[in-house]
Amino acid sequence: MRRARALDKSVMRTIKLSKVFTLLESGPVVLVTTHDGKRPNVMTISWTMVLDFTPRFAITTGAWNYSYKALRKTRECVIAIPTVDMLDAVVGVGTCSGSDTDKFAKFGLTPLPGQVVEAPLIKECLANIECRVVEIIRRYDIVVLDAVVAHRSSSLRKIRTLHAVGDGTFIVDGRRLDRRRQMKGKIPEGV
Amino acid sequence: MRRARALDKSVMRTIKLSKVFTLLESGPVVLVTTHDGKRPNVMTISWTMVLDFTPRFAITTGAWNYSYKALRKTRECVIAIPTVDMLDAVVGVGTCSGSDTDKFAKFGLTPLPGQVVEAPLIKECLANIECRVVEIIRRYDIVVLDAVVAHRSSSLRKIRTLHAVGDGTFIVDGRRLDRRRQMKGKIPEGV
Repeated sequence: MRRARALDKSVMRTIKLSKVFTLLESGPVVLVTTHDGKRPNVMTISWTMVLDFTPRFAITTGAWNYSYKALRKTRECVIAIPTVDMLDAVVGVGTCSGSDTDKFAKFGLTPLPGQVVEAPLIKECLANIECRVVEIIRRYDIVVLDAVVAHRSSSLRKIRTLHAVGDGTFIVDGRRLDRRRQMKGKIPEGV
Repeated sequence: MRRARALDKSVMRTIKLSKVFTLLESGPVVLVTTHDGKRPNVMTISWTMVLDFTPRFAITTGAWNYSYKALRKTRECVIAIPTVDMLDAVVGVGTCSGSDTDKFAKFGLTPLPGQVVEAPLIKECLANIECRVVEIIRRYDIVVLDAVVAHRSSSLRKIRTLHAVGDGTFIVDGRRLDRRRQMKGKIPEGV
């Protein structure tokens, strides 16, 4: 593994790997960045799943996404969690192609160097998870990812995320209900 | 395939298969029922993913769930979508085992015969998806499911769902934002 780059702590702070699965478990729509060696790119994905607390994730993608080629070639990506204020960027990124569009410029997203992978972090997002591809299960277009390091925004706090319904509407996070006491025995250590 | 049973339309109505992925795409916590030939059982799962509009889904589960044995044996289950009012049942189901507990009785869930599979529907849920196992990818504990028929509650309308965060808290659906116009080209037919 290449030596890790340092990140500006006024912009992003490290999240413990043991907590990273909690960024995806609620099912937010995410932005997935790649870098093909020449240019960065980004796609919108709502088909994601936690696989393990290690943390390991799955996403569903395939040749219908231009980013897929870079993902297969480099075996790296960043999963970025957008805020509710980023809805139009999320929709825009999901409805054009990196083959003919610089989506970062077009949708006002700021790419920042990651600590370990070449795929960029997105400054405006709540959190960014640097991932390596473990395996691509071609039969189902499932990409299995391991998080290697993750970062949360230093400035954004208690900002809500978006959940794609799949019919062109999006649900915003509402109130949060606490059942930590009842679930005590089920929550892994370090969460 | 066995002849389909009729369902009482005052309780549940059929959902078109082309729309079923929209029940899971936003990432709600779900209840998964099974029937081992003797008794029904139910587990709480928040690790789910849409794989295709057909509709095909993945869930992550394994030998740590008592239900897994019945799922492997019968290769059938029902994915039920609970409402926000069912939070304590969702948490209760997720923190005890069907090996020594009748969870339907304990948490006030009413099992109803499904149309095709032996695993029961849950009357109190917003929707129930009858599924068959396509494949179990043991290496990652991913269970690939095909929906065969699905039902929505005839009485519950615009009821919110729950999203598990994984730390013992749950996010309730908030407001819904409409980007159908912008996403027109991306929404499959029949949704």
